[in-house]
Amino acid sequence: MQIDQSLQDELRGVARACADAARVETLRYFRGAGLLADDKDPGAGFDPVTQGDRAGEAAMRAVLAELRPGDGILGEEQAAIPSQTGLTWVLDPIDGTRGYLAGTPTWGTLIAVHAGGAPVYGIVDQPYIGERFEGGFGAAQWSRAGAARDLRTRQTVTLDQAILFTTFPEVGTADERRGFEAVAAQVLLTRYGMDCYAYALVAAGHADLVIEAGLQPYDIQGPMAVVEGAGGVVTAWDGGPAEGGGRVIAAANPVIHAAALALLAAAS
Amino acid sequence: MQIDQSLQDELRGVARACADAARVETLRYFRGAGLLADDKDPGAGFDPVTQGDRAGEAAMRAVLAELRPGDGILGEEQAAIPSQTGLTWVLDPIDGTRGYLAGTPTWGTLIAVHAGGAPVYGIVDQPYIGERFEGGFGAAQWSRAGAARDLRTRQTVTLDQAILFTTFPEVGTADERRGFEAVAAQVLLTRYGMDCYAYALVAAGHADLVIEAGLQPYDIQGPMAVVEGAGGVVTAWDGGPAEGGGRVIAAANPVIHAAALALLAAAS
Repeated sequence: MQIDQSLQDELRGVARACADAARVETLRYFRGAGLLADDKDPGAGFDPVTQGDRAGEAAMRAVLAELRPGDGILGEEQAAIPSQTGLTWVLDPIDGTRGYLAGTPTWGTLIAVHAGGAPVYGIVDQPYIGERFEGGFGAAQWSRAGAARDLRTRQTVTLDQAILFTTFPEVGTADERRGFEAVAAQVLLTRYGMDCYAYALVAAGHADLVIEAGLQPYDIQGPMAVVEGAGGVVTAWDGGPAEGGGRVIAAANPVIHAAALALLAAAS
Repeated sequence: MQIDQSLQDELRGVARACADAARVETLRYFRGAGLLADDKDPGAGFDPVTQGDRAGEAAMRAVLAELRPGDGILGEEQAAIPSQTGLTWVLDPIDGTRGYLAGTPTWGTLIAVHAGGAPVYGIVDQPYIGERFEGGFGAAQWSRAGAARDLRTRQTVTLDQAILFTTFPEVGTADERRGFEAVAAQVLLTRYGMDCYAYALVAAGHADLVIEAGLQPYDIQGPMAVVEGAGGVVTAWDGGPAEGGGRVIAAANPVIHAAALALLAAAS
């Protein structure tokens, strides 16, 4: 579908309003005594769903019901709403609930506008630090407390100079872990445990690769739009589309992306 | 040595002045285009020393030369200065240089005042977020942008409810890793990659255990004073003093500390 300049501006504004609304709710429960977690699926280990998660999604849905009532919604917490406009909002109020529970400021609110089979605009918002990373429609931007600047991935970094982020060793099959380790063996530095914040660091040109597995669509569509808007490449491990989740790689540039993809294919 | 109320107040003020001075320098180079790293010891892998590290320590030493000229200094970057007063400042301008290089806001400036064989006051400062965690002389405090509150570890949490932080899998021998994994198998949640920020989270009652190995004295003395001031327990894995570095465990309370120590002893 065609998204003209006027609609782009409207969608950016609505996305920011969603992020603003979610901030209030996620910060209300972050590090708070009232923090509750329960277990969606006791058989699958520890998967906390917090009050902040639920309240954050409800706040974003209220914004969308007001401002974009015909758009679809795919959120982590509540049932999907089909789209009447061709646009669907993909929402994860708290990506990184484990980090949220542990008090680390690396979780984020993820928002994407999905159209024509791919995310066209996205936000990675870190409320506690107050940083917002946005991307789509050919650009990407960082902002904090009134300051803003363009985001740009490192276009010339090579694999041996790269900084890699991952959720491994926690996530993934043995096969997936071998793939990840084959790439980790070739890079300058590997860091763990940053949740969605790692994608923001790639968009901002501080890191160069994120390799993950087992993702949901709402885990990747916001970060994907931000990294792509900043000049990066985001695909599945096999080079196919990433917006469905699963095994995902985000890279600062096409050269490093191709090099990592070859290592993943050979090892996993 | 006796440290009366007047000297306590003075030392707190000087420690804060050191942290303020280091902030300017560490933030000057954080995420900046001018970030340089070289390798202290090429045989031991990747150990970046940044411009921010050097400038941060120089700024703190300048404060101490002015305000506490007779005190000793043990810093990561420059030669030690012997104490003429019985007090020694233990400084690490950037703990978590890998995180600093990768743009993650989990590194920190560590400051301790050492007297009579142990740290008596310490600071863990995270300049980018703007958070400061202080502890010693029987109290501990968090502050950010003019707001402040007391820090208190979780006094009643048990091992099965605990949140554990570590730098593993990166750091440690195979033997040490077995010890860490024995504890990790018993806790609610394990998180990676938070550098000194993990100790601050234990002091603040968000997490409950930090287990590390291969530490230097300047890596642990600041965090140790903060965690102890907030009601936690910090020792070596064998229960001995932690201020020399090496294998260190920080725990929210004596019960969880004893339980983790027993698991470490049995497994490593």
